[in-house]
Amino acid sequence: MAAPDNLSTIASYVAHAEARDWDAFDQLLHPEVVYEIPQTRERLVGRERLRAFNTAYPGDWHLALAESYADDSGGTARLEWRLGVGETGTAIVFFRFDQVGLVTRITDWWPEPYEPPPGREHLIERW
Amino acid sequence: MAAPDNLSTIASYVAHAEARDWDAFDQLLHPEVVYEIPQTRERLVGRERLRAFNTAYPGDWHLALAESYADDSGGTARLEWRLGVGETGTAIVFFRFDQVGLVTRITDWWPEPYEPPPGREHLIERW
Repeated sequence: MAAPDNLSTIASYVAHAEARDWDAFDQLLHPEVVYEIPQTRERLVGRERLRAFNTAYPGDWHLALAESYADDSGGTARLEWRLGVGETGTAIVFFRFDQVGLVTRITDWWPEPYEPPPGREHLIERW
Repeated sequence: MAAPDNLSTIASYVAHAEARDWDAFDQLLHPEVVYEIPQTRERLVGRERLRAFNTAYPGDWHLALAESYADDSGGTARLEWRLGVGETGTAIVFFRFDQVGLVTRITDWWPEPYEPPPGREHLIERW
């Protein structure tokens, strides 16, 4: 198995966020961690700011790890999120790790449902 | 290094698509490969249908592999796509592989830009 520590860090990242255990969460992060959401062109730097962002995030949100992959310097996680009792969706997170396994960069993707373009109904089915 | 063959298959998948070398592309795939776009709830089964879908895809599209991770049974790729001369974006692909390394499932994600919700401007900057 490759990079068991980084895979374990990804699992802990999700578990600590779900548990709102922000002290344990912070211990996974480099102090100057960079957090980005490319879809909104948002970026913050530093785990204090990230904690403020996460603890201020509105709603009764929940996260579960669906699958993850990693190597010695980076990795990905697909998360199933739930907001309250009804709303659900997928988030995809990319990570960068330093040599001692601290998270130096987090890139969040929040893909939204959309309607497919017309013209391919004969090739592909919808569920 | 873990799962070098699956990482190599991911790189070939992108390279063969970019080159429109659909014969080489097909050789990476299980005959009954499942292709899904969860955001549109679209699904097709079989590499013949996938080839028809890919070759019918409109526009002068280009793909480049930005990063990838894999283990013995799955993997992820982040792709930078370009359409014509101007439009660019990110696609994220998840793969499943069978025991001989053929791709059995492809899940495409196409995250779109959106405006961030108000109320967090004091915590996060935009670029």
